[in-house]
Amino acid sequence: MAVYTKISDSDLHHFLADYDVGRLTSYRGIAEGVQNTNYLIHTDKDQFILTLYEKLVDEKDLPFFLGLMEHLATHDISCPLPVHDKNGRVLRELGGRPAVMVTFLDGFSVSKPQRRHCADLGTALAKMHLAGADFSLQRPNTLSLDGWRQLSGKIMEKMSSRYWTWEGANIDSGIIMRIILDELEYLRNRWPADLPTGIIHADLFPDNVFFLNDQLSGLIDFYFACNDFLAYDLAICLNAWCFETDASYNVTRGSALMNSYQKARPLEQAELNALPLLARGAALRFLLTRIYDWINTPEDALVTRHDPSEYLRKLRFHQQIKSASEYGFEK
Amino acid sequence: MAVYTKISDSDLHHFLADYDVGRLTSYRGIAEGVQNTNYLIHTDKDQFILTLYEKLVDEKDLPFFLGLMEHLATHDISCPLPVHDKNGRVLRELGGRPAVMVTFLDGFSVSKPQRRHCADLGTALAKMHLAGADFSLQRPNTLSLDGWRQLSGKIMEKMSSRYWTWEGANIDSGIIMRIILDELEYLRNRWPADLPTGIIHADLFPDNVFFLNDQLSGLIDFYFACNDFLAYDLAICLNAWCFETDASYNVTRGSALMNSYQKARPLEQAELNALPLLARGAALRFLLTRIYDWINTPEDALVTRHDPSEYLRKLRFHQQIKSASEYGFEK
Repeated sequence: MAVYTKISDSDLHHFLADYDVGRLTSYRGIAEGVQNTNYLIHTDKDQFILTLYEKLVDEKDLPFFLGLMEHLATHDISCPLPVHDKNGRVLRELGGRPAVMVTFLDGFSVSKPQRRHCADLGTALAKMHLAGADFSLQRPNTLSLDGWRQLSGKIMEKMSSRYWTWEGANIDSGIIMRIILDELEYLRNRWPADLPTGIIHADLFPDNVFFLNDQLSGLIDFYFACNDFLAYDLAICLNAWCFETDASYNVTRGSALMNSYQKARPLEQAELNALPLLARGAALRFLLTRIYDWINTPEDALVTRHDPSEYLRKLRFHQQIKSASEYGFEK
Repeated sequence: MAVYTKISDSDLHHFLADYDVGRLTSYRGIAEGVQNTNYLIHTDKDQFILTLYEKLVDEKDLPFFLGLMEHLATHDISCPLPVHDKNGRVLRELGGRPAVMVTFLDGFSVSKPQRRHCADLGTALAKMHLAGADFSLQRPNTLSLDGWRQLSGKIMEKMSSRYWTWEGANIDSGIIMRIILDELEYLRNRWPADLPTGIIHADLFPDNVFFLNDQLSGLIDFYFACNDFLAYDLAICLNAWCFETDASYNVTRGSALMNSYQKARPLEQAELNALPLLARGAALRFLLTRIYDWINTPEDALVTRHDPSEYLRKLRFHQQIKSASEYGFEK
């Protein structure tokens, strides 16, 4: 949500001279993404997003992220396409940071997703999974079981030092730690090993899906993308798109999401069976990162902290679910 | 430098329905201005800046600021033009904030102004002063002598409580307080009373002047504009545009600024005589606000704090100046 690296007009002119993108007419720092600095660039030909990667993104992962966007964009998935400079390079440097220009996507995220948005999302997610099948690079999911355990350790260490509260809940730190440890243990013993895997987005929240004239116009922000169970990506979307603000589950939206996904990429029985478990895992993953961000963000920082208790309530919901049909899936 | 107020797509759709601006295709929060929330709006017809005024701007001043922009834009000064809705209103409300849409200006600020930029600036500043002559609203300058005294009091109170340092200087707080009080006393006894007055921008730093293809393309950010001595605006520009980063004065740029101003609006002898004094006042004004911001901004806030000592060095420079000719002014 901030411009961490300031770019001067002369640096930008110098940088853009290597591209065939037209003449610079305007550039503005935009408040997008917590991790990187982004500029919206206008030229007399077109618009672009220029991203400077701050230290939170591991440079060695950039070829994977950028290669994936290019792979998907050239396989009929609407997402930002990295722009090659005149020498064919995508990954450059600007202001001492790795820097990439991507095409600008029209559209904007919806703050209150409806049934039709979830239906479009399901189709787009399935198509993205299919399009990713022949992408050659690999990146393990650092935020799966092992990552959750490490994150839990850091959280336990910090949470035991003082009493923490957040908007939605006044929960005793000890109780939260107990819930997290129990859930970790539960998932560790049951996490599947043999579901269909592939490229997943892993962070496909409403913020990262654009609509234009009520049609899905693009997917953005692939900086958590990795190889993992495809159905886990669906479970993340169930968490991110199909709950009301009070964390009650909206089965209409869930049904639209799952059944449109199923039409484009039929789920195997094993995936359906695993869905409640995967949804618990996804809820735990966002519970953990939100707690971590909450307790590590200064209270007066100009960054929106997301209420972790939202995912505590979602986790509790998934703990009650016995089968995919309860999410609205129709065989 | 931040998006303080988040706007949902449905709120924005509702808001834009009252305007004849085309269909929304994209909106992004932009990192512009420390005081307000700004969105860059794309429609299928054009681009606009949507500003939500945060609490730092006094609502009662908005008719002055918006009226001034409209007055100047319709008097041949390139600046953002407030957009009227279908009912003729300019000042609206969105997200619980006063909200205004203005036209988008092509161009961008130069980080290292050259002689030609200063010459263009001088012409634009003089033209703005002339165009403002028949603007009917008035707003006193709250950051002149009285304002400086009040600000000094607040700074003294806070600075006496601990030792402060900033990048450019390790100066004893007591010495800084002495310099400020001496300068205030000096200016109070000599500040002119009878120079030509009118509408001044009062914050025309390089950030607030856009260039396109090396021609000045517009002036922005009128939220310090007020009625005061016209030559004081020129003195602010001398401070903001004509020093090197080490605070040494660049007489080539100063000469370009002053002499191009003079061609469009000839300065009276009294204004020229007062210029060194006005330049001291301008340096003190920015020294005070920078110190105030520095000691009131948390060190870990995601906001760029400007080094106050830059203006201490500029103030000392002006204290040595005897006449406008030393700034490069040619009779």
